[in-house]
Amino acid sequence: MCSLPVPREPLRRVAVTGGTHGNEMSGVCLAQHWLRAPGELQRPSFSAMPVLANPAATAACRRYMDRDLNRTFTNTFLTARAHPDDPYEVTRARELNQLLGPMASGGAFDFVLDLHNTTANMGTCLIVDTAHNVFAMHLYRHLQMLSPELPCRVILYKLPKEESGSLNSVAKNGMALELGPQPQGVLRADLFTRMRALVAAALDFIQLFNQGTAFPAFEMEAYRVLRGMDFPRTEAGDLAGTVHPQLQDRDFEPLRPGAPIFQMFSGEDVLYEGESTVYPVFINEAGYYDKGIAFLQTEKLTFSVPALSMLAPAPTPGP
Amino acid sequence: MCSLPVPREPLRRVAVTGGTHGNEMSGVCLAQHWLRAPGELQRPSFSAMPVLANPAATAACRRYMDRDLNRTFTNTFLTARAHPDDPYEVTRARELNQLLGPMASGGAFDFVLDLHNTTANMGTCLIVDTAHNVFAMHLYRHLQMLSPELPCRVILYKLPKEESGSLNSVAKNGMALELGPQPQGVLRADLFTRMRALVAAALDFIQLFNQGTAFPAFEMEAYRVLRGMDFPRTEAGDLAGTVHPQLQDRDFEPLRPGAPIFQMFSGEDVLYEGESTVYPVFINEAGYYDKGIAFLQTEKLTFSVPALSMLAPAPTPGP
Repeated sequence: MCSLPVPREPLRRVAVTGGTHGNEMSGVCLAQHWLRAPGELQRPSFSAMPVLANPAATAACRRYMDRDLNRTFTNTFLTARAHPDDPYEVTRARELNQLLGPMASGGAFDFVLDLHNTTANMGTCLIVDTAHNVFAMHLYRHLQMLSPELPCRVILYKLPKEESGSLNSVAKNGMALELGPQPQGVLRADLFTRMRALVAAALDFIQLFNQGTAFPAFEMEAYRVLRGMDFPRTEAGDLAGTVHPQLQDRDFEPLRPGAPIFQMFSGEDVLYEGESTVYPVFINEAGYYDKGIAFLQTEKLTFSVPALSMLAPAPTPGP
Repeated sequence: MCSLPVPREPLRRVAVTGGTHGNEMSGVCLAQHWLRAPGELQRPSFSAMPVLANPAATAACRRYMDRDLNRTFTNTFLTARAHPDDPYEVTRARELNQLLGPMASGGAFDFVLDLHNTTANMGTCLIVDTAHNVFAMHLYRHLQMLSPELPCRVILYKLPKEESGSLNSVAKNGMALELGPQPQGVLRADLFTRMRALVAAALDFIQLFNQGTAFPAFEMEAYRVLRGMDFPRTEAGDLAGTVHPQLQDRDFEPLRPGAPIFQMFSGEDVLYEGESTVYPVFINEAGYYDKGIAFLQTEKLTFSVPALSMLAPAPTPGP
């Protein structure tokens, strides 16, 4: 596996962002709390900055006002000339790019951890662009080893040749932390506590890295996104069925050809007609209905992650 | 117990309304489905009319556009002169009052069943103004006897001297059917199927009544709403804590003085300081955050319901 450059210097400029989607309440409330009481985000070698990413959507308790902020950090949006009629999230993405970026520049933040919730039964997972992000994979391993009883999974979300557009892509490195299931607009104490502990552990990992700790090579699994699958719909675009009870809540479990995926309102089942086993994620995520996604199909990969230390030799450039 | 007048004639004009809250998807999708295929709502003595109550909020997948439609069926809103700046839901309430009412008139529909979901762990419940609604209590008993393994509970929601404002109050009789837990904006197949079966059973009950079936007196329990309880908040109004893990998902279970109800972000617990045991419902309902309600306190009542038949003698007028 080729690897992206790992940090050669301590990570000093770190941000934790919540409310990128304004109705995902664990990150919303953690960001609001840390803005009042930031001490929890301090470590000996750095202080992470809390950011409420989408204040307007948070105030309205909606995912977004005009368009999904977490798909708006693209070169096109960030570099176009500002206009009074720009969607709110385009303006906000430019502000965040000034605050945490500029994207792909030497002045960008070293690391952004972006906090999310899903209505899907996904437990704890990290969303990273590619498996080539060696630093992110070691952070994952650190979190998993701290709580071996709670699976922490990694989703590789970037499709080939697709620009990420995610908030954390403005920084030199970053990832999203996704916890579920939690309804939009609801703050469950159990998920709030878990997210808070995971953020603390992620900051502890950065501190360990900054103080020169070396992390050995290891093997891991991750789920790479292949494609989305829409709900069955009527000609008018309304739902004509929904996720089958045998698929609902079964995120990360194998879906084999011939298994039911949808239950039509007319009664019949729709079966999975793919040729190979896939691993659905984001099953019945509320925020994906208007994107035409009932679930994402992923493939499970196993790969080696090289050792990590701050003084690692410059890696061979990737393809 | 005094009783309200029971119907003396068959119920011919019946409506089933969904999407009163546009992101409560079981009712939204059932109403949309029945508008395409209404046959399921036919019975020998009547055909129930499906209604998508809040089309704009449904299209936006929001609870409401300008104000909660299910609090807008009050005399003040329905009788005020129409104005171009009226909130969307005020205009829509007047349209529905024309379609299904007018409220408190002889021309109103005989029965409206209004379909809702909650993010709270409430299972199946019926929401009725008062225990004096003998017809509704018999409908409840019919549903409960059909599925004795699944508890069906009755919530008496009308506070003393408070105008209901609910959609079903435009009809001569009605109730809300509330199923949970389901996130806003998500359609779970299990709840969709259960709601569909409950509506069918409710229509079957009306058919039995219409064909002259007599229903014997019985004893029952119900939960009468006493008051709401808000989340702990900061001076700015942000959340300062959330529902305690020991209370979360425990709808309808007794809450005793001294038990924890909130977990503060600062770490400490907030205890229930009431003097008597209450039965919380709508615990952590997403739609209640902006109403300042973390849960509703109810008291559990046991009472007798008199026999019901279409030719019942006129009851003694209540107080």
